[in-house]
Amino acid sequence: MAATDDGSLQRLVGALQRLPGVGVRSAARMAYHLLLHDRSGALELAHALRQAAESVRHCALCHTLCEQEVCATCADPNRDASQLCVVENPADQAAMERAGIYQGRYFVLMGRLRPLEPQDAQAPGWHALQQRVQTDAALRELIVATSFTVEGEATAHALAQLGRALGLRVTRLARGVPLGSELEFVDPGTLAHALADRRPV
Amino acid sequence: MAATDDGSLQRLVGALQRLPGVGVRSAARMAYHLLLHDRSGALELAHALRQAAESVRHCALCHTLCEQEVCATCADPNRDASQLCVVENPADQAAMERAGIYQGRYFVLMGRLRPLEPQDAQAPGWHALQQRVQTDAALRELIVATSFTVEGEATAHALAQLGRALGLRVTRLARGVPLGSELEFVDPGTLAHALADRRPV
Ligand SMILES: [Zn+2]
Ligand SMILES: [Zn+2]
Repeated sequence: MAATDDGSLQRLVGALQRLPGVGVRSAARMAYHLLLHDRSGALELAHALRQAAESVRHCALCHTLCEQEVCATCADPNRDASQLCVVENPADQAAMERAGIYQGRYFVLMGRLRPLEPQDAQAPGWHALQQRVQTDAALRELIVATSFTVEGEATAHALAQLGRALGLRVTRLARGVPLGSELEFVDPGTLAHALADRRPV
Repeated sequence: MAATDDGSLQRLVGALQRLPGVGVRSAARMAYHLLLHDRSGALELAHALRQAAESVRHCALCHTLCEQEVCATCADPNRDASQLCVVENPADQAAMERAGIYQGRYFVLMGRLRPLEPQDAQAPGWHALQQRVQTDAALRELIVATSFTVEGEATAHALAQLGRALGLRVTRLARGVPLGSELEFVDPGTLAHALADRRPV
């Protein structure tokens, strides 16, 4: 920050570093950009931060972030209450919705389980999910839609244990070759799963 | 953002995208992080943005960002007014200061010239620099400390023209092998400059 006595600028660079993935160099670049070229953007961001920090909370049913007691998806009476699809985050839920085939309900973990880390490092939604599945009388099937990564697998494993202990059917999204893929470019692990899970035609 | 009617969250994700280098995915990750784990960080950032946007301005002499009419470095009466070192940004100025050998004054371009782009895409400080060197009666030497990149070279060229037209001595930081480097790992262009600028020992 050079030899200036510039408190506001240094405080801004420090505050920007609280954003994930932002170190001191990108924080400085962001601060300069806003102050040199986009002060209205700085004020807009300040307003959006304050408003969101004050109004956004968790949906009481699915744990996603929303501004109401219950989010729009959970409030929809046309969705099948016997199925609960557990996703890691709202973007995954959006991807499922775009597929256009699922009519059940969702639970959004807002993260993944980290099995080897202490309790408070777990996905924020894990305890809310436990409570939800233990008290939801309409529930029959838990559909695990976590990612196919080490942490996603660990999460799937914990979800399966939880669901089976409650006598629920537990299923998981199929692994296989994506539509439109040429085999040449599909990774070996995916191909191995696709072969093991091959189906009669 | 899933099928929620979540205005505040979407506005926050939109506002975060005004930061340079932040696309929709990292903006969403930042928003979730702040809202799930660091609401005080969100409020602190909001405050810092507003305060900086309202109080930070350009030093009237060197164009760096500061909160006073004139920054601390420019206000220092012990610095040599006959030399003006032109750097691209405050981090470069800080690096020069750490070298501990320069006692003259600075000008901070807050960017580089982009010779092929329209006038308003130039470094914000370019016009302020022109005015400064034209009116600074104590000035004798312009020390070009722009980076050794295509845009930095173009900026150096423009600075040399500007300085010489005013009868100033114009110098530039030497190119050469960095201290502590093994030749094996020095790039060919640097080595070529180091050879051409070789000095008697
Ligand atoms: Zn919900
Ligand atoms: Zn100054």
